Amino acid sequence: MAIGITTIRKGDATRARIVLEAVNQASVRGLATVSLHDVADAVGLSKSGVFKHFSAKEALHLAVLETAAASFTEAVWLPAKAEARGRARMDRLFEGLMRWNEGYWRGGCPLTAAARELEQQPGDLRDYVVGQLQLLLETIARVAQGLTEPPLPDETGAQAAFEINGIVAAYKHSLSLGDPRARERAQAAYEAVVGRLTPP
Amino acid sequence: MAIGITTIRKGDATRARIVLEAVNQASVRGLATVSLHDVADAVGLSKSGVFKHFSAKEALHLAVLETAAASFTEAVWLPAKAEARGRARMDRLFEGLMRWNEGYWRGGCPLTAAARELEQQPGDLRDYVVGQLQLLLETIARVAQGLTEPPLPDETGAQAAFEINGIVAAYKHSLSLGDPRARERAQAAYEAVVGRLTPP
Repeated sequence: MAIGITTIRKGDATRARIVLEAVNQASVRGLATVSLHDVADAVGLSKSGVFKHFSAKEALHLAVLETAAASFTEAVWLPAKAEARGRARMDRLFEGLMRWNEGYWRGGCPLTAAARELEQQPGDLRDYVVGQLQLLLETIARVAQGLTEPPLPDETGAQAAFEINGIVAAYKHSLSLGDPRARERAQAAYEAVVGRLTPP
Repeated sequence: MAIGITTIRKGDATRARIVLEAVNQASVRGLATVSLHDVADAVGLSKSGVFKHFSAKEALHLAVLETAAASFTEAVWLPAKAEARGRARMDRLFEGLMRWNEGYWRGGCPLTAAARELEQQPGDLRDYVVGQLQLLLETIARVAQGLTEPPLPDETGAQAAFEINGIVAAYKHSLSLGDPRARERAQAAYEAVVGRLTPP
């Protein structure tokens, strides 16, 4: 759906406030439990006030995923892209992934949570999330390939993306178990992967 | 709670059937949505038939976690422990972890799912899950330390456990995205970690 500049109006700020609250709720409890009612309560609107912007839960859920993906681009990908190709860009991307999972949202990554939740529920929402997460893995792979000149082979990049994705997951897991050395362990694991790809 | 051998009776088979169905449901949809009603339906009992064994949802949920933990010991840990200390035990443990996440349950690992779900819900259930997952990381660490003689330092073992845990998570993630090379990637990542710990 293309939205022209002329459609921007006061109501858009309210819409954005609704979606932001919904993304935060989804990051904590998953998409399924995000209801128009709870979101209305949290942002201090009547349910009909929320209904003006989202006529159904499904529309709100899609907006949640789109907003999470757009935020990821802004908070993680664009800062990495601004760095020089190679180690600097890889480091910035990894750092961005760590921070995204540390406290960018009230809970964890809303997209990963949704992917787990929707695993056995085929449909548009699931396709959207899977597409976004595949794009992320492809992005990590491409940045990893750029660690050397000429670039590393596709397969090496894909393997690095798999492993870096795993480090981020292990980091979240260790954080949730209260491991005070989680960050340090993630950094050491990352250095080992990058070290293997870029022999001295 | 100690249960003497004298308490074993016909009803225990029904109880086991109830719990097994509940673990499978929890592996797919998480603990919160496992209700006495749904489980009763699935095993073909009346709700009062289930109530004879579990008077409250909380008791069923704890039984789900305990059964998942006991199954893990039997399916993953005991076969690894039966192998010789060193590479054989490490390989068997990794293989067990992979299979546990592939199709041992109807969904994924019920304990990991519960840990995520209970992350923001302090209480006995959460303490139990966190304890089990910490025990798992400690077990992987100890097996990894045994890769060399004399054993690797504690910190090296803990780092290896962090990384192997991440590989398993990345594997699950890639499976859910439908990556046909997920298993191969996990194996390569595992070989890289073990290779680093055991220089030729």
